[in-house]
Amino acid sequence: MAERFRRIVLISRPDGLPVPGNFAIETAPVPEPGNGQILVRNDTLGLAPSARIRMSEITAKGSYDPPTPLGGVVHGQSLGTVIQSRHPDFEPGDRVVLTAGGWQEISVSDATLARRIEPGLAAETCWLGALGVSGFTAYAGLIGVGAVAATDTVVVSAASGAVGSMAAQIARAKGARVIGIAGGAAKCAYLRDDLRLDGAVDYKAADFDDALAAACGGGVDLYFDNVGGRVRDAVLGRMARHGRIVLCGLLAEYNDLSGAAGPSWLPILTRELRVQGFLMRSWQHLYADFVRDVSGWIASGAVRIREDITDGLENTPDAFIRMLSGKNFGKSVVRL
Amino acid sequence: MAERFRRIVLISRPDGLPVPGNFAIETAPVPEPGNGQILVRNDTLGLAPSARIRMSEITAKGSYDPPTPLGGVVHGQSLGTVIQSRHPDFEPGDRVVLTAGGWQEISVSDATLARRIEPGLAAETCWLGALGVSGFTAYAGLIGVGAVAATDTVVVSAASGAVGSMAAQIARAKGARVIGIAGGAAKCAYLRDDLRLDGAVDYKAADFDDALAAACGGGVDLYFDNVGGRVRDAVLGRMARHGRIVLCGLLAEYNDLSGAAGPSWLPILTRELRVQGFLMRSWQHLYADFVRDVSGWIASGAVRIREDITDGLENTPDAFIRMLSGKNFGKSVVRL
Repeated sequence: MAERFRRIVLISRPDGLPVPGNFAIETAPVPEPGNGQILVRNDTLGLAPSARIRMSEITAKGSYDPPTPLGGVVHGQSLGTVIQSRHPDFEPGDRVVLTAGGWQEISVSDATLARRIEPGLAAETCWLGALGVSGFTAYAGLIGVGAVAATDTVVVSAASGAVGSMAAQIARAKGARVIGIAGGAAKCAYLRDDLRLDGAVDYKAADFDDALAAACGGGVDLYFDNVGGRVRDAVLGRMARHGRIVLCGLLAEYNDLSGAAGPSWLPILTRELRVQGFLMRSWQHLYADFVRDVSGWIASGAVRIREDITDGLENTPDAFIRMLSGKNFGKSVVRL
Repeated sequence: MAERFRRIVLISRPDGLPVPGNFAIETAPVPEPGNGQILVRNDTLGLAPSARIRMSEITAKGSYDPPTPLGGVVHGQSLGTVIQSRHPDFEPGDRVVLTAGGWQEISVSDATLARRIEPGLAAETCWLGALGVSGFTAYAGLIGVGAVAATDTVVVSAASGAVGSMAAQIARAKGARVIGIAGGAAKCAYLRDDLRLDGAVDYKAADFDDALAAACGGGVDLYFDNVGGRVRDAVLGRMARHGRIVLCGLLAEYNDLSGAAGPSWLPILTRELRVQGFLMRSWQHLYADFVRDVSGWIASGAVRIREDITDGLENTPDAFIRMLSGKNFGKSVVRL
């Protein structure tokens, strides 16, 4: 009998925050890769909040990705070893990161969605985070979209998360003054003490607005937004003239894609702000610079990595729900 | 006894749409210009919706201009003749446009807020509209902020108004496909027949959303927004990937600066839109190009002018209220 592997599928669509019952674990026979594809045995998964978008059937008007079908494998990144290749660029034994490996032990992937990791540049799991989608998203947003400058006061929301911690540290490495926003004293201490940011503001604290105002001083030149919602609205009120808002995520709104209202656009007009949404895939021309810069910053200690590690494929839904609830601390990875 | 002149002052702050009782007409003695100032006898006023912002005491957080004090002359542009000058660049008899002449027969103005009109380039009142603040706002927004291209599908709201009609015609002169939005069949006919736009959509019609979708085809590359509100929300839903929204005004929201809610930012993220607010004053480096291009387009007939003319200083408040209600048709000017 052919080898079977385990995978996690979506069996019902979450209403708001996902619950464990939205997911089920099942087994399936190992598939054959088609022409141009590779077969990969995964050992680590990388979780990202944006996967929540695909769990809703109607992903808000104009969303960029199709929803995961009911019964389909949940979307996500994976790290593993090529066990069979039908593409000339890969061979068995290659260590690769798959953009759409999914929550499963074995994946078939188009070679175009696989990237061979460069050995020796950093710890392997960095290719799921700091040197993976999270890090590249942060880099593309800050450097490409936001054109961060050393004279900027930069605010980053969800700054202890996978993308946020990279955005904050990249801004810091570029010489900017950086204020991080996170939930709770422990995360704020991490922003100050470990990431060495210039300020940290707790969005769960009663004095959030005042603390934000005090931390931002003369106004925010660049806001790297991962969350939307009331945190975004508060920072919008602190933007400096000609400030830029780099819209990377709307974590606070992913559970209700039917269209949470946003803030009035008046400050965008009167302060001549620029608000720009972006997807990492549009900034691939920066990829080589990204790997060079970020691996250098990791090596020099300018960028520090923190991972939130869960063991066992079966615990992936819980880790994902924890992350959407803001209870993770660093890049969420699952070791299979 | 010294000569006296008439002026219109703000005597109470409007709540929502202004009413005639918010204004009063009074007389005052002709003032002496200070050093660096000029004294001007106005013969024409140019009205603009943005003057409404200054009538509220708390002009939304971060507004760019101080409110008009109670008892103060209402803010606005004027066209007139210099009768006394204490600045070397001006002399009696010069025809000038004053950025902040106000609703009055005689103004003292800093010379820095006065611009001598260039005789023979176009009809004089054009310097209050097509070659004035309205035209330059449209030009700066489309050319500077929006970088309009001949391949763009452009949508302009309030397209029969002073700024909108210029924005639509400038986009058309640049070779873009241009859809105008206006209220009512007469204005839409004007957009099609007089301004020769590629499409006109009536935001007051029951089928507005469908008509907009049909007119925009493959999506809106550039939206020049003068109004905000539900029209903006509808166009936001039709933006193409990487579309740009040039935020020039929020006419629909000026009467409630306490902060009308805006739309969800999800389309900005998923379609990688750029939303940018701007004020004409930040784009002065384009001024010479503007006068050259627009006067050329007026001369060639590529840009057509329509004015909504009112006679008599005492009728200025009514003309202003009519404009804010969308009942004007072209640039609102008052002949004194």
